Parts: sequence; structure tokens; C-alpha cells
Amino acid sequence: MHRNFVLKGTVCYSQSPHALVTLPDAYLVCEEGVCAGVFAGWPEAYRAFPLTDCGTKLIVPGLIDLHVHAPQYAFRGLGMDLELLEWLAAHTFPEESKYRDLGYAREAYTAFVDALTRGPNTRACVFATCHLPATRLLMDLLEASGLVTLVGKVNMDRNAPDGLREASAENSLRDTRAWLEGIEKRYERTAPILTPRFIPSCTDELMRGIAAIQNEWGLPVQSHLSENPGEIAWVRELCPNAAFYGDAYDQFGLFGGDVPTVMAHCVGSDEREIERMSEKGVFVAHCPQSNANLSSGIAPVRRFLSRGLRVGLGSDVAGGCHTSIFRAMADAIQMSKLRWRLVDADDKALSLAEAFYLGTKGGGAFFGKVGSFETGYEFDALVIDDSALAAPFTLTPEERLARVVYSEGESRIVAKYARGRTVFAA
Amino acid sequence: MHRNFVLKGTVCYSQSPHALVTLPDAYLVCEEGVCAGVFAGWPEAYRAFPLTDCGTKLIVPGLIDLHVHAPQYAFRGLGMDLELLEWLAAHTFPEESKYRDLGYAREAYTAFVDALTRGPNTRACVFATCHLPATRLLMDLLEASGLVTLVGKVNMDRNAPDGLREASAENSLRDTRAWLEGIEKRYERTAPILTPRFIPSCTDELMRGIAAIQNEWGLPVQSHLSENPGEIAWVRELCPNAAFYGDAYDQFGLFGGDVPTVMAHCVGSDEREIERMSEKGVFVAHCPQSNANLSSGIAPVRRFLSRGLRVGLGSDVAGGCHTSIFRAMADAIQMSKLRWRLVDADDKALSLAEAFYLGTKGGGAFFGKVGSFETGYEFDALVIDDSALAAPFTLTPEERLARVVYSEGESRIVAKYARGRTVFAA
Repeated sequence: MHRNFVLKGTVCYSQSPHALVTLPDAYLVCEEGVCAGVFAGWPEAYRAFPLTDCGTKLIVPGLIDLHVHAPQYAFRGLGMDLELLEWLAAHTFPEESKYRDLGYAREAYTAFVDALTRGPNTRACVFATCHLPATRLLMDLLEASGLVTLVGKVNMDRNAPDGLREASAENSLRDTRAWLEGIEKRYERTAPILTPRFIPSCTDELMRGIAAIQNEWGLPVQSHLSENPGEIAWVRELCPNAAFYGDAYDQFGLFGGDVPTVMAHCVGSDEREIERMSEKGVFVAHCPQSNANLSSGIAPVRRFLSRGLRVGLGSDVAGGCHTSIFRAMADAIQMSKLRWRLVDADDKALSLAEAFYLGTKGGGAFFGKVGSFETGYEFDALVIDDSALAAPFTLTPEERLARVVYSEGESRIVAKYARGRTVFAA
Repeated sequence: MHRNFVLKGTVCYSQSPHALVTLPDAYLVCEEGVCAGVFAGWPEAYRAFPLTDCGTKLIVPGLIDLHVHAPQYAFRGLGMDLELLEWLAAHTFPEESKYRDLGYAREAYTAFVDALTRGPNTRACVFATCHLPATRLLMDLLEASGLVTLVGKVNMDRNAPDGLREASAENSLRDTRAWLEGIEKRYERTAPILTPRFIPSCTDELMRGIAAIQNEWGLPVQSHLSENPGEIAWVRELCPNAAFYGDAYDQFGLFGGDVPTVMAHCVGSDEREIERMSEKGVFVAHCPQSNANLSSGIAPVRRFLSRGLRVGLGSDVAGGCHTSIFRAMADAIQMSKLRWRLVDADDKALSLAEAFYLGTKGGGAFFGKVGSFETGYEFDALVIDDSALAAPFTLTPEERLARVVYSEGESRIVAKYARGRTVFAA
């Protein structure tokens, strides 16, 4: 395992939302899977490390997908004429029911993991389904891919069809424990994350039980929050004692604080919810394309950032159709411009540097020191051949990066590393 | 030249915004460059025509780009942090100035035409620059590509930098006549379209002169309309006697009626402007991605359609970053959903069938009987291998089409025809 090496190329990474560093002909050092620095010359101390000269190719941190549904990859781009709750009932739940069949799961999850592996993301927070064998299979496939992921067996004991809804809170919790025990020490790069689907899918008893498991195992949590007006109104009915949607999670102890928590969407989060997320350090997975596809709206990302919230990007396949977080960056910028124009002229649009930050270091923070090339960061990197995006004039590194983001799919990832391990190299 | 042939495959086309026809194993007949019909079996009358069996591949009409700037292709995806007027000044005008250099124009236009040729569009309304040799070169390249296009030498005699602004209305008009005379009878598939850039770029004298040329030559007209609030306010200042922006064109006789006219954007068109476009049969080129990138807003496409306006889609490269009108279809749907959610709940979102119609038959109408496989339509077609978008279950033809639209770039165009002529075939 070559976890000590040097890459030479045009290095780009974020230090902060406003500080995008670009260094042509730079030496990027990986030492024991961790970034040992970016240097203008090849430091003496690392002369023994093998060097790969990538020429003028771009080298950027691996991208971070804070929210993706593995079993929905199979139907991306379909049934997009519905809103969230109708779409779940008509498309998502029937499709997810199929994952009881391990043969089906193998075919579908293999395609998902292949796509993820080929693409620019190195990390992801992944929803599976409630099915144990299929979830374990997904984790096996992800582990073999070299990607670093958090994967959740979904909990859902109400408001779902018979074939998918878990029989009771007790069953759901027993299965969750069995899942956790069954995978203990099984993986190096694949870890479990507790995944109550969303408030409408989980009884109070189930939420209390998940909190107990969280407490016992010390696991992170992922779920959905304030995505769509219909859903928000429903949660208000279901939880009359919650001050707001996020408060319903918080009442069960599943909303940040000591519990690493990432909540997808937050399109309709009001001031109180934003305040609570800020206090408790809850991560927001901003999923702009999904929020357009399901007519949810545009999340107030500028407000999240100015309040100091921790924000990353999510593909939300299959609410979103694209796994690549480059696409999510472009979508996030475009949506923020429309929000500025149509909703609130005080919330200025995201810049390219900010969107790049969100899709790398911003989301990476949920995984630790991840998503940058600052010293001490885990070494996730992409080497990108953007020659198909050349112009008849010289592009600066920032311009090349902008073009890679906006023209997602037109450049070619020639090498990909996660935690210093080669995922692939041409 | 094989302009008589039969393609067999899964044929999809629009009859109307709501009538999407899909026929598996259908025989699509091209006779003398015109669609002779779609048949369940191979008609006796066409047994002498060569048959290409495309298996289950999708066969759809070529896509129509009603608005694209050829000289902006070189800087797509760059400088997207500005609004329209600032973006024109900082990026567009300096770049367009370079097209005085024919060597530069050759390199840049070759890349543009190559991209257009490889992609799914078969027709386009193209803005060049004000430079004669470069515009003629662009037309030569487009003619050689096999695509069918309307190309405009741009007119602009005010509010542009010295290197780009034409010296006077007289100069601009003389150049326009010289351009038209120089290309007369030169092309089979490439025709001129009069192109006053937009009101702020053209003095009254120039507009009157363009109207005189229009009258003399009977040419169509393309321009920009009500794109961005800053621009609309500026036009109000520049044309105090115009009732609204479109009225300024109309006062010069360059706004539909007997003059085939396509106006890009119409984001800020008010009721009076919509009414006038309806009366005069002005086409709208809806450019959703550009309108997001330049923070312009979301055009009221639903209102255009319900008022019976003639609407197609435009890439508006480089306001938009993508030449493919498949991408514009997906963008149009997503933006219409956000408009429904954020601006006007009475204007319901576009369906996939409607967006597909806009990008084919809707825009195609500007070129005549174009954009459908109904009998008598000019034969523009794409054969699409969408096997990379397969699912672990059987997709209907409509679902396959939806996925091709949403996952633009992930399917492969294996053959492309325009007016019955093969643009390429694998």
C-alpha cells in the first residue's frame, strides 16, 4: 500500500469559504494517508517518496456528498413531476421495497457503487434501506471500492407501505442492533450512521430507542429536516409539542450537541431552527438540485453561513439526478442567485469559491479533517484532466476549476485517492 | 446523398406540448429529406429504401437551440459571479473584440462548431460578432458541419468598447449589406438573420436602417428582450417613448408580424409585452440556465404557453454553460418548479413532455416544419444509445427519454441527421 507519495500538478483547495488556494507546479505530499503539505519545490524530507508528475493537471480534494440514497440511484431522473410526499409514495417506497431481494440489491447497488467510484466524490453519507442483508451488501461493496463512507440502515416504523415499513419500533431497534453487531470491526473505510428516515416515518418509541442506541454506541446520526412545505406541515401535526421541526429531533436527543448530526435540506428552516442548529453544531446537507426537482424551494444557505452553521453539499440522489458534487456546486450557485433575485435580496449569492468550499472542506468536516490539503488533513484527492475544456486563451487555475464545476462530466478524472489509498489511477 | 432511408427503433416525438408519442420497434421513413411517417411495420412503398435497424435505441427529433452566441463558447463557465450588464462589460465585449483576428476566430469557432456537431442540436439561431470575415468563417464552418442554422452578424453602434462598437450606424448598415451580398447563394443550410444586439447597443438610426434592410431582404430577426432588471431599467431610460421594452423594437417594425422574430429571455415581460408578442407572433427563446447564472430570474413560461405564445429553448452560451438543449429542457423544468414555489403558484411547473416539446417542435417552428416526426416535417433526427443509463428494471420509452434529458451527457448520440442528411453516424 503506497500511502507515502508526492503528486505534482496544479493544486487547488479551500482554506475557508473565501480562501481558495491555487498553486501551479506544486508538490502535494501524502504521508501515511495524511496531507503533509503543499510545496513550491520537492522538499528534501520527501525525496524518498515516489513522485507522480501530473503536469498541469488539476489536483483537488475529493468531493464530499453529505446526503445520498443508494437505493434511489436506480430511478434517478424518473417520476420528477411530483412533490416530496407524493414522490415518496409513488416511486421511492415501492422501489425501496425491492431491496428485500438480495439479488436485486446486488445489481442495483453495484451500479450505484460503480458510479460513485468513477465520479469525483471520495466520501458520502449514505442512506440504505431498512433491509439488513442488502445494507450489509452495500457496505461490503463500498468498502471494496476504496471510498470512505458512513452508511445507514434506515429506521421507519410508520407511514410507509407494508412491504417496507418495519413491523414495530421493537423490530426496527432489534434489527438495528443486529446490523451494528454484525458489522462490528468488519470494515476499515465503511462505518455505520444511525438513520431514522424522518420524523413522519418514526414513532416516538422508535426515536427513543435510536437515541438509546446512539448513546450506547456513540454513533453519528443523519436524517431529513424541513425539506418541503407539505412535509413541514405534517410534522407540525405529528409533533404538536415540538416548537419546530428540528425541535422534534432535539427532544429525543438526536440533534447535535454530543451527537454528530447531519440534516438534509433545511429549505424551510426558520430562525429558531437555524439558531438551534447553530447552538448544537448540526451539519446542513444542502441539496439544491433535489430541492428544485421536488418543488421544495431554495434553502437559505447564505443565512446558514453567516450564522456560522456547518454546511456541506448533498446530491440527494434520486431527488437529485446527479451523483457528482461538482454538479451540486454549480446548482448551489445558480439556486442562490435565484433566491437572491426572487426571495431575499439581503442574502447574496454564493461565489464559486464558496460552493467549492461547501463541497470539499465544508462537508468534509463531518468526517474529521477532510476536504482540504492543509497539513494534517486526510489525503483525499482527484487528478483531473480538463484538456477537453481548453479555451483559445490561457485559463488561470481558478478559471479552469470554474469550468470543471460548471461543465461537470466534460473533464476526466484520471486518478482518485481516499485516505491516501489509490481508488483508481489511469 | 442518401436522403431516402428508413430507421427502425424506439421513436419518440411531440405532436403538441401534451402529446408525446413513443413507439417501440417503429419504422421512421425519410423521403427526400422529409419525414414520410412513422409506421408499426415496414410499408411496402418504402421497401426499396435502405433500412438501418437501431434496435431498441431511442430516435428523437434533432434539438433546436433558439439562442446561442458562438463567440462566447470560448468563455463558458467563466466570470459567472456578475449580472448581465457587468458581465457584458467585463467578459463578453472584451472577448468578442478578439474576433477581429481571423486566426483567433478560426480556432474558437472551430471548437464551437465541433461541440455543436457532436451534441444533440441540429438547428440553431446563432449570434456571431460584428466582424464580417469572422462571421463568414463561422457560416462556412457551420455549413460544412451539416447543421442547419440562422447566423447573425451583430449590429451594435453604441454602448460598447471602442474595439467592438461599430463606428456609426452607417458603417454598421453598410457592413450588414456587404455581409448579405457576400454570402448570397453561398450556402444550402446556413442563412442570415438580422441581429441588432439589443436596444442599448443600437441607435435609432441603426434600428431604422436594419428595418429597411429587413424590408428589402425579407430576413428574420433575433435579439434580446427583458432579460434582467438592470437592462430593463436602462431601456426605459433610453426609450422614453416606448410603452415597454418590446414596444421599442415594435416601433421600428422589428417585432414580429410579417417579420419572423425571435426574442431571447423575456424574464421580465409584463402583461402588455406578452400581449404584444402574442399578437405579433414573436417567438420566445427561453434560456433558463443563463437566467439563473446571470441572476436575471425565471421567465414566466407557463404564462407564455397559456397565452398561446410561440416558445422554444435556448442555451444562451455563454450566459448558459451548456450547448445541449437536453440540458435546457431539464433546467426549464427545474426553474419552472422554483417559479411555481417562489413566485406564482398559479403558474404550474412544466412537465417533461412540455419541456421536450419546447426543445423540439416548439423551437423548430421558427425554422418551418421542424422538430417533429409528423408527416411532412423536415427530417432532423438523433439516434441515442442510452445503455449507460439502464436500470435494474425495465424502463418505458418515456422513462428512458426522461433519463436522457435529466442525465444529459451520460447517453451517447450514435447518429445524427439534419434535413435527411447524415451529420454523423457511428
